[in-house]
Amino acid sequence: MIIQKKLNSEKPPITHSVTVINQRGEKKQVMIATEIPLTIKVDGQELVTLMTLGMHQKDLVLGYVRNQGLITDLKAIEGITIDWENETADIATVSGNGLIEMEKKKSTKVVTSGCGQGTLFSCNLDKLYNTPLKPFKLRQSTLYTLLKSLSKCNPIYKTAGSVHGCALCHGSKVLLFFEDVGRHNAADAISGRMWTEHIKGTNKILYTTGRLTSEIVMKSAAMEISVLVSRSGVTRMGLDLAIDLGMTIIGRAKGSNFSVFSGEEFMVFDGVKKQIS
Amino acid sequence: MIIQKKLNSEKPPITHSVTVINQRGEKKQVMIATEIPLTIKVDGQELVTLMTLGMHQKDLVLGYVRNQGLITDLKAIEGITIDWENETADIATVSGNGLIEMEKKKSTKVVTSGCGQGTLFSCNLDKLYNTPLKPFKLRQSTLYTLLKSLSKCNPIYKTAGSVHGCALCHGSKVLLFFEDVGRHNAADAISGRMWTEHIKGTNKILYTTGRLTSEIVMKSAAMEISVLVSRSGVTRMGLDLAIDLGMTIIGRAKGSNFSVFSGEEFMVFDGVKKQIS
Repeated sequence: MIIQKKLNSEKPPITHSVTVINQRGEKKQVMIATEIPLTIKVDGQELVTLMTLGMHQKDLVLGYVRNQGLITDLKAIEGITIDWENETADIATVSGNGLIEMEKKKSTKVVTSGCGQGTLFSCNLDKLYNTPLKPFKLRQSTLYTLLKSLSKCNPIYKTAGSVHGCALCHGSKVLLFFEDVGRHNAADAISGRMWTEHIKGTNKILYTTGRLTSEIVMKSAAMEISVLVSRSGVTRMGLDLAIDLGMTIIGRAKGSNFSVFSGEEFMVFDGVKKQIS
Repeated sequence: MIIQKKLNSEKPPITHSVTVINQRGEKKQVMIATEIPLTIKVDGQELVTLMTLGMHQKDLVLGYVRNQGLITDLKAIEGITIDWENETADIATVSGNGLIEMEKKKSTKVVTSGCGQGTLFSCNLDKLYNTPLKPFKLRQSTLYTLLKSLSKCNPIYKTAGSVHGCALCHGSKVLLFFEDVGRHNAADAISGRMWTEHIKGTNKILYTTGRLTSEIVMKSAAMEISVLVSRSGVTRMGLDLAIDLGMTIIGRAKGSNFSVFSGEEFMVFDGVKKQIS
């Protein structure tokens, strides 16, 4: 796959310093996060516009089409042209006919969203059930070591706030950590990177700072990841779907606290005395 | 406008009690928030599916089409039929030809998203500039009284977490407070209620627990609200847009802290000594 960058197309900075007036009436410099409308095109035709921080744009674009089930084989993609000036990422497919093939595949109109933000949600729930998840045991002590590592992994959030983070983990090891302003972009970017680097999701953990809604559960299942950990909570639909798919859901995971919402039979409580004061 | 509810169509509960296992291996009952895919139809044809808590569904549906600029006159709507069993809200237009009119208006395909989540973003930025915002002075003491009132206004968040809240305020008074799982649904629902109750946005404040991204700034401008207050931060694009539109942006507003990101000339610092210890 050829990743091309348009000439004179500089990637904008991730954070910016701005002057604010605080509650004491004093001027103060603070950092804020970038937000760019990146339009994904397929063979020159608009697919969707995602609001993004602009990091890991190749991974984001690939992960988006993969998680949506729009392109299932990486070999169908010839290259991606990133053009920051025009805020586009154009996927060139081998057939040159990508968008029409996507529309056929989904047997429904493909969502396009002009100059704004759009998210397209795959109806292929059935497909997720076709590949059963492979659950595995997770030790509380491993989770604690992982949470400690993760707490050092969010540089943009620490600097500017207003971003969500998502991590691919193996045991207590953080393999990838991506941040983005778009709630689901970080998860999509992880999926994109897993795709190009042939990383399987089967024995991995997906961590997110965001809420576990149905969409993030479906994205996790699409990546074949059976353990989902969040600093935040879960919605009813997210939980129901996770139970149906046989996914372990650990929410409110922060410091030494966590709540196992599903898959408690895969949780090994070995770290209680050591970790809880 | 006739609001109809389909027979045998019970609105699902907003929160549910579930059993979790905490870090000590103990069973515990916690509340989680509902998440329903509500498909908005126009004259029987699918427009978009929003993931929602299911509160204030009439307001949400109306606010969505209003904030997207898809229907500009309330009189064009004959009625809305809510069908919880099929998770749909069908807008009947007077012409009976609503979706085609929307497509014409936007001179682009209208986003439809099958069985999932979709957000459609209006390209009508120019239109927002056509109606200049009317900025007004805001006293720090008023803001503090308002923040105190707002802290009592989020019952779902306090019970179940995983929701965002949005409030319409006049001075230090909270007129409306809506919560939803969808980040922007709460703001749309406020817009819908303002529409049916003929509440003008000109002298109002919009408060949100969420981040101030470009989309929320645009929604606020579409409601003609010139002061946007958030417990969270702002993105570069949100701030740039707010400055262009002449909007006052107050972020990180929590307790006695806040940061004025734009419109500082409209902030009256009268509460410094009294409020800050």
